[in-house]
Amino acid sequence: MDRRTFLCNLALGAAGLAVSRRVAAEADLAPFRAEIEKHHDEAVKRLQHWIAQPTIAAEKRGIEEGCELTIRMLQEAGFDTVRRVPSDGVPGIIATLDAGAPRTIGLYFMYDVKQADPAEWSSPPWEGRLVDKPGLGKVLVGRGATNQKGPEATFLSALHAFRGTGRKVPVNLVLVAEGEEEIGSPHFPQIVGNPQVRAALSKCTGVYMPFPSQDPNGLVTIYLGSKGVVELELVSSGEKWGRGSSHDIHSSYKASVDSPAWHLVQALHTLVSPDGNTPAIDGFADKARPLHGWEKKMIADATRNMDEATLKKLLGMQRWVHDLKFLEAQERLVSQPTVNIEGLVGGYTGPGGKTILPHKAVAKLDLRLVPEMTAAGAVDALKKHLAKRGFGDIEVNVTGGYGPNTTPADSALIRGMQSVYRKNGIVASLWPRLAGSWPGYVFTGEPLRLAAGHFGTGHGSGAHAPDEYYLIESSNPKVQGMDAATLSHVQYLYELASIN
Amino acid sequence: MDRRTFLCNLALGAAGLAVSRRVAAEADLAPFRAEIEKHHDEAVKRLQHWIAQPTIAAEKRGIEEGCELTIRMLQEAGFDTVRRVPSDGVPGIIATLDAGAPRTIGLYFMYDVKQADPAEWSSPPWEGRLVDKPGLGKVLVGRGATNQKGPEATFLSALHAFRGTGRKVPVNLVLVAEGEEEIGSPHFPQIVGNPQVRAALSKCTGVYMPFPSQDPNGLVTIYLGSKGVVELELVSSGEKWGRGSSHDIHSSYKASVDSPAWHLVQALHTLVSPDGNTPAIDGFADKARPLHGWEKKMIADATRNMDEATLKKLLGMQRWVHDLKFLEAQERLVSQPTVNIEGLVGGYTGPGGKTILPHKAVAKLDLRLVPEMTAAGAVDALKKHLAKRGFGDIEVNVTGGYGPNTTPADSALIRGMQSVYRKNGIVASLWPRLAGSWPGYVFTGEPLRLAAGHFGTGHGSGAHAPDEYYLIESSNPKVQGMDAATLSHVQYLYELASIN
Repeated sequence: MDRRTFLCNLALGAAGLAVSRRVAAEADLAPFRAEIEKHHDEAVKRLQHWIAQPTIAAEKRGIEEGCELTIRMLQEAGFDTVRRVPSDGVPGIIATLDAGAPRTIGLYFMYDVKQADPAEWSSPPWEGRLVDKPGLGKVLVGRGATNQKGPEATFLSALHAFRGTGRKVPVNLVLVAEGEEEIGSPHFPQIVGNPQVRAALSKCTGVYMPFPSQDPNGLVTIYLGSKGVVELELVSSGEKWGRGSSHDIHSSYKASVDSPAWHLVQALHTLVSPDGNTPAIDGFADKARPLHGWEKKMIADATRNMDEATLKKLLGMQRWVHDLKFLEAQERLVSQPTVNIEGLVGGYTGPGGKTILPHKAVAKLDLRLVPEMTAAGAVDALKKHLAKRGFGDIEVNVTGGYGPNTTPADSALIRGMQSVYRKNGIVASLWPRLAGSWPGYVFTGEPLRLAAGHFGTGHGSGAHAPDEYYLIESSNPKVQGMDAATLSHVQYLYELASIN
Repeated sequence: MDRRTFLCNLALGAAGLAVSRRVAAEADLAPFRAEIEKHHDEAVKRLQHWIAQPTIAAEKRGIEEGCELTIRMLQEAGFDTVRRVPSDGVPGIIATLDAGAPRTIGLYFMYDVKQADPAEWSSPPWEGRLVDKPGLGKVLVGRGATNQKGPEATFLSALHAFRGTGRKVPVNLVLVAEGEEEIGSPHFPQIVGNPQVRAALSKCTGVYMPFPSQDPNGLVTIYLGSKGVVELELVSSGEKWGRGSSHDIHSSYKASVDSPAWHLVQALHTLVSPDGNTPAIDGFADKARPLHGWEKKMIADATRNMDEATLKKLLGMQRWVHDLKFLEAQERLVSQPTVNIEGLVGGYTGPGGKTILPHKAVAKLDLRLVPEMTAAGAVDALKKHLAKRGFGDIEVNVTGGYGPNTTPADSALIRGMQSVYRKNGIVASLWPRLAGSWPGYVFTGEPLRLAAGHFGTGHGSGAHAPDEYYLIESSNPKVQGMDAATLSHVQYLYELASIN
């Protein structure tokens, strides 16, 4: 099925649902569809162009170029004012669109991406090549395709469609962007705390991030928040330890010289349960609150609509931790804080061996936090835990992090999402919180206290992994391609304009 | 002090010691000194040329070129026959020099080197640049400078000196070389087991490896054997484990998906004592025999001549394991088997972080073995240990290894060394065994049962580390530079020709 047929099917499917007071707006979608379809190639090229300009904060790569390009793209999409917001790290961006509307909606963008090792990819990560993916359709493969440039470019195409059709955007927009999301948004509080940014955001009903919300079967999950995250490195070195050597020495000396690598292993060993699945850091999860009854019910309701086999296949795995049943694994995913090893690097890491006693070894960890845990509390617990066990010399270098966030199910932002998905014939389940993390706390927390979430139809996968992709043309009628996802943002803005 | 002055001082120092029946030979050293000095620059260039052609078995780099160059160098040094010895891995070399002498001496060469990361070096590892090193003199910096091309090239210069002076080498020579020493000599038994090689070696009184035996203070240690070694990788993967994922996934899934990286950490944790200093692998050291009384005495005698502060400075460390006294640390170095982490590599290893749950993690280990342990026994114990604790899925990929070796103190090879060092005014202590490893077991074990050891004056350091160097021109009268070390090989061959 090609893109045109699909958009036609979508229209037919939606026809029977147009029963609310949004009939007027619904009727207006036809010109948007035509406009979006007409500029399809342009929209894909815009995304490819963005992907070809990676911004990787961890490597200080493409900062200026990525910021400039994003500013230009926002200007071209129709924002009235687009300004760089300086920070002590990578600059942020504030963009506003004054439509003279009664309601103002906030958008959250990130213009940075994770690293990518081209050797691990089947097509070049910075090319954005269109590839046929059996069972899905035509996908665009590239770093940032789904996380987050694909869905963000899709939102921008919706704004282009407003301009192209000569329609006024039905809400005012305040967009705030950062380029350090992938290193834990260390300076995003500073960006949002900028008086002009804060003043603009304070007028918003809520803030959302464009997101390809459909799974490969077309199902959507609406997240009422997310876990917090802390990223850090544990560095064990002879220098700080005062044992072992200050440079790599011949491994034969192991008999008489201490090993910072073993020191690190023994420290790591104490951080989790023997199976590696439960944090064992003293006091780490003391404030973690168990699931409410309504959260458990929400998980059970949503899980009934999910396909365990599809998810396991996507993840390339066979068994959940502890051989849990799917529902139990889902509850764990929502409710449990984690201590994860992202990377281990010490001594010789090349092919074969090299008989050295390394003077240094590093573990890269991420900690995921649930309400009512805090990033500062987690780091403090980790440091105390290590010190208490004789590992106080191991450096805890925090590279970024923030607490969890929560948004009420009855907020306009969430109800608007549910309405649009319903009108598109898409099953959308509420879910207590994303197991991943995004810095929504800067919006949901003091002083803004805004609703915050993710919205968008469409599909993508492979965030942070090789062959990350975003669906452009769907071969599955239940899953929307890029054009239909673009239309979903048009619909959502109309919905937000009118919802109580 | 320049090189000429130094050689002159050496001659004066040696004069009073010439009292044995080697007077004739001693008197003959003058033309050798002149010849070596005359061709000094040539000898340095030969070494630089060799260093510029790295052979790195772990990376399958420079195999052919390195083998060919070594063959050519042996031919030019005067060996009658030089032949490649095929193996299932990197080829070996056999070279013979028939001097028509009653005694035949074996030589062991390696033509491979460890890897080197140029970023860690203060001068390029493949250049062999001459650098002034305060307190030592002029050194040649390069990978293989001391381990083992420097001392090997020095031996070849001694043969050139025989040709240059028109003297006959006083013993027949059988030289066997390999290009996989740095990966644990996996095919050296096959090379030595070649019927022609074995037949040639069986005529030898013993086998030695050219070695820069002097420490920075000029002291020499004669090793009566070495520890054995096994190099291996422990590979923990979701695929083999049947838990976790088969590719890297987003780290938020840690709450419900197992982690092969934590699995590896928990397995590693069981391999050593909590301080990382004592192997805890079941049965690993059951056959390790404690030190004999005479070995303890030998260590005590030799340690009295050693400078603990200098050694600690060289190693860049402050405390021995368990805060042992120097003598205790030395006994441990000789007597204890070890389990060392050479390298840790898993998930994301670049700068900053990357929120993935890795599907695989690897620990590179080396195990050092003392008599009566065997390589096969050590690997078997490790595998059983892991299996017993629920880590049987972790792959144990052995890349090389062999058992320890021992040579009697009263062998001609060892007594000849002692004699030459004494004649050079150098304090040489006997030492039960090198804590490092070399595949001497192929000579000392069945069926050859030859004495085997290391010989040479001179100094070098930094084996396997950045800025590896070999002393060319010494500024310390107690330590010999390359020319004097060349002469020490001339002396040793004369000594071996006449000793009972």
